[in-house]
Amino acid sequence: MRSEKKDFKPKMAITMGDPRGIGPEVVAKAFARAAPHDFCTPLVLGDADVLSRTVQSMNLGLRVMEVGEEGVPDIQARVLPVLSLSNLPSGKGPGEIPPEESSRASFAYIERAARMALEGEVEAIATAPVSKGAIHGAGISFRGHTEYLAEISGTKEFVMMLAGARLKVALVTTHVPLQSVAQLLTDEKIFSVIGITARGLQEYFHLRPPRLAVAALNPHAGEGGLVGDEEVIISRAVQRARDLGFSVSGPFSADSLFHRVRMGEFDAVVCMYHDQGLIPLKLLHFDTAVNVTLGLPFVRTSVDHGVAYDIAGKGVANSRSMEEAIRLAARMARRKKGRQ
Amino acid sequence: MRSEKKDFKPKMAITMGDPRGIGPEVVAKAFARAAPHDFCTPLVLGDADVLSRTVQSMNLGLRVMEVGEEGVPDIQARVLPVLSLSNLPSGKGPGEIPPEESSRASFAYIERAARMALEGEVEAIATAPVSKGAIHGAGISFRGHTEYLAEISGTKEFVMMLAGARLKVALVTTHVPLQSVAQLLTDEKIFSVIGITARGLQEYFHLRPPRLAVAALNPHAGEGGLVGDEEVIISRAVQRARDLGFSVSGPFSADSLFHRVRMGEFDAVVCMYHDQGLIPLKLLHFDTAVNVTLGLPFVRTSVDHGVAYDIAGKGVANSRSMEEAIRLAARMARRKKGRQ
Repeated sequence: MRSEKKDFKPKMAITMGDPRGIGPEVVAKAFARAAPHDFCTPLVLGDADVLSRTVQSMNLGLRVMEVGEEGVPDIQARVLPVLSLSNLPSGKGPGEIPPEESSRASFAYIERAARMALEGEVEAIATAPVSKGAIHGAGISFRGHTEYLAEISGTKEFVMMLAGARLKVALVTTHVPLQSVAQLLTDEKIFSVIGITARGLQEYFHLRPPRLAVAALNPHAGEGGLVGDEEVIISRAVQRARDLGFSVSGPFSADSLFHRVRMGEFDAVVCMYHDQGLIPLKLLHFDTAVNVTLGLPFVRTSVDHGVAYDIAGKGVANSRSMEEAIRLAARMARRKKGRQ
Repeated sequence: MRSEKKDFKPKMAITMGDPRGIGPEVVAKAFARAAPHDFCTPLVLGDADVLSRTVQSMNLGLRVMEVGEEGVPDIQARVLPVLSLSNLPSGKGPGEIPPEESSRASFAYIERAARMALEGEVEAIATAPVSKGAIHGAGISFRGHTEYLAEISGTKEFVMMLAGARLKVALVTTHVPLQSVAQLLTDEKIFSVIGITARGLQEYFHLRPPRLAVAALNPHAGEGGLVGDEEVIISRAVQRARDLGFSVSGPFSADSLFHRVRMGEFDAVVCMYHDQGLIPLKLLHFDTAVNVTLGLPFVRTSVDHGVAYDIAGKGVANSRSMEEAIRLAARMARRKKGRQ
């Protein structure tokens, strides 16, 4: 049975993100604008005082309700339920929260969300932005949400995908120096990303079959070996996936490929490196794309933007990506349930 | 005197590109649609028979007129004047022209155009696409139009810029393997590209002063050294240019930068590698962007697309980039004249 259970409201952990960034604001605004209670049973993991101040300073018409550890409560709209995991000085705005405390707290929200998901207390996680650099600076080894959730769940093969309405990009390498990308590419790794992405798009996005394009690494797809030869590796992975029946083609010159996707030729692009996928994604879907981790034992989505310290506390942050992240996580959890 | 001489019609060499590609088609269509005689004195360097067949098979209502070596003729509209530099078998369409002969001819057109420009016989060159791989395959060492024209004119410092109405990108590295990009970046090189781009935008595009952004190399601009450290080099180059009074800032995380440009914050982006600039450019300006070489002793523009062998001879190629390349070259030549 593969249908989506429309009446099923999945339990969802929503992490508040770095208290010094725009996380508290986009989470609160998402509750005010998207009414997540209508389609899921949400619980925010964060800081009750920080959220209360945020809600009040922006007149969002919400009530922040602190809840205990007993699980996700089923409560009414206009209430923002929070499991408070930190006790930060919130009085004077995000800029005055001590950076180390803020970073440690932001990590604690993620850690708890992961545990709840692993123990089946929630069906999905939607995360607000943290700063890898700041968490690192607080003495915690952290390479990013995606990498952390994969590690803690013992997931070897996973994919970071960014999804917008017209363009979806899956990344073969993520947060690594550009210089390291070429040496990290293997046909095994590329083949794995193609497979996980195709299955994810089929299971969670109902694309049957999803039409995947694979981007080349080098300019002009290497021009037959004149400017780089990694396209040979990529070609092998594509062929292997085709042999198994996947609808996938490439490697294609990256510069013109995304126009073809926009014109409807493909559903998603497997990209070799972070900016190859994120540059076109953010041009086509600024503020509305969602970061999805495929391959984990639970559903996980995230905003597609960073902490934006420079505009934190000003009330000008756009919450659309957070709203979409919560909506998409709920839809994915329903579709997953429909299959069981 | 910096005004543009509106009544001045610059002499322009237009190369036909690879006869097996869409070059002949986009050149002929550009003559039919853009009436270049109105704003320049054009001469096509190519193959008279190939162009005649192209014009006839597409009913473009043009007359191909073979002209001699004595220079660019001043002739009437609806005439496509060609200095014929090859004698290819054109009867049966582009697919049947022998690849080696076609590639050698495509190189001969460029060679002659460069010589005419260096000797002052033309004020500008606009080029249709060739295949670097195919020219290489014909035994000619050729790394690309831009690199060839720089070499033959003894130009050490030059910039490949792609220009669309809203986005302009200047490339620090061009047709090199992605793996080599990081090691090719020096603050000297980046500083040079900033300077040439700023001066080019001021001289030819009348942006005073042009507002430049510089893209980071690594994801999230390296996150303070966590994922790559080339941003230190880029920062030094930016600071050096700012010290000289240039309006330039960065390095900025590349994934969100192009949205900011689209929103009007900057006039152009200095990019570290080919696809970093070409991916957003082709998303925003597919079919209409123009490739401009800054720093040469003469004006040179080109289409922003390749030979597209797969659609050659079918009559479906879009000539807008070729039209824009001819128009922009004429405008640049007028502005250059206005300064002398």
